[in-house]
Amino acid sequence: SRPCCIEALLAEAAEPGTPARPCPCPLPSGDTALSRLVRRLLSARRSLDLCLFSFSCPQLARAVQLLHRRGVRVRVVTDAQYMGMHGSQIGRLRHAGIQVRHDQHSGYMHHKFAIVDRRMLITGSLNWTTQAIQSNRENVLVVEDAEYVKAFQDEFERIWEEYDPANYRFF
Amino acid sequence: SRPCCIEALLAEAAEPGTPARPCPCPLPSGDTALSRLVRRLLSARRSLDLCLFSFSCPQLARAVQLLHRRGVRVRVVTDAQYMGMHGSQIGRLRHAGIQVRHDQHSGYMHHKFAIVDRRMLITGSLNWTTQAIQSNRENVLVVEDAEYVKAFQDEFERIWEEYDPANYRFF
Repeated sequence: SRPCCIEALLAEAAEPGTPARPCPCPLPSGDTALSRLVRRLLSARRSLDLCLFSFSCPQLARAVQLLHRRGVRVRVVTDAQYMGMHGSQIGRLRHAGIQVRHDQHSGYMHHKFAIVDRRMLITGSLNWTTQAIQSNRENVLVVEDAEYVKAFQDEFERIWEEYDPANYRFF
Repeated sequence: SRPCCIEALLAEAAEPGTPARPCPCPLPSGDTALSRLVRRLLSARRSLDLCLFSFSCPQLARAVQLLHRRGVRVRVVTDAQYMGMHGSQIGRLRHAGIQVRHDQHSGYMHHKFAIVDRRMLITGSLNWTTQAIQSNRENVLVVEDAEYVKAFQDEFERIWEEYDPANYRFF
């Protein structure tokens, strides 16, 4: 989608009920692909499981940190080669106290999915980068069918255990 | 999936009814993620629409060429920056007479989906490269729900028209 402002969305999620002050920035704040994604993430009440090849979009990182502060159990799995790239938000999430695990293979951990409250699967071609959101042709599927959600949740749990730091072999 | 041999699958699709000679190569030829993907592609009878960021896997290119020779209408949309990369199969498909169109933007055409007979959607994180198939953690969803198939088919038709060479601006 085009560059857009999601400050009002984040402010409302941070302090529900308080009318959000309009953001003074010149970017449009209407309905965009990014705002729809953020709304779905912010609907999390209990858990958010993220399995993301690359995560460098600061706005999405703020939404994730906000959920963490709100008490939602956030777990992140990411790719070892990409998590240290310039602009990666992974360090910021770790500093905020969010649990992050990564692969230790030469291949990529190339998934790009999120599961909200073990109920809603958000998956597709989209890496969580500003370039992908603003410039690429991408698809994002939002699915609540239990059959699909379970397949991805099972894969998440498998990877989460496999990438447990206790299993690291490079120490 | 692990490296595997799909010669028997391709031979059977090329000459249905003829018992395939066992391939003398040492690779396993059992049920793998790649063989399951190839089987679904080879089930095409009328059309195959491919919208792929990168396509360098020679085995998948052979399956696509086989369908083209069998009279299936194959259309390919791909990314301009990646189609000329070392190992890309796009030139080979064009030489075989398959219609290929590409974007002309700085952003990526980052989709990775296929639609078989306007009926079955195959989508996910998987680029059609040997590295992705053999070494990465990837997901591929196979969906026949009309609602999902239609959304992707509509996007395909939109992109197909938008990337019509008659619209190129760089001549």
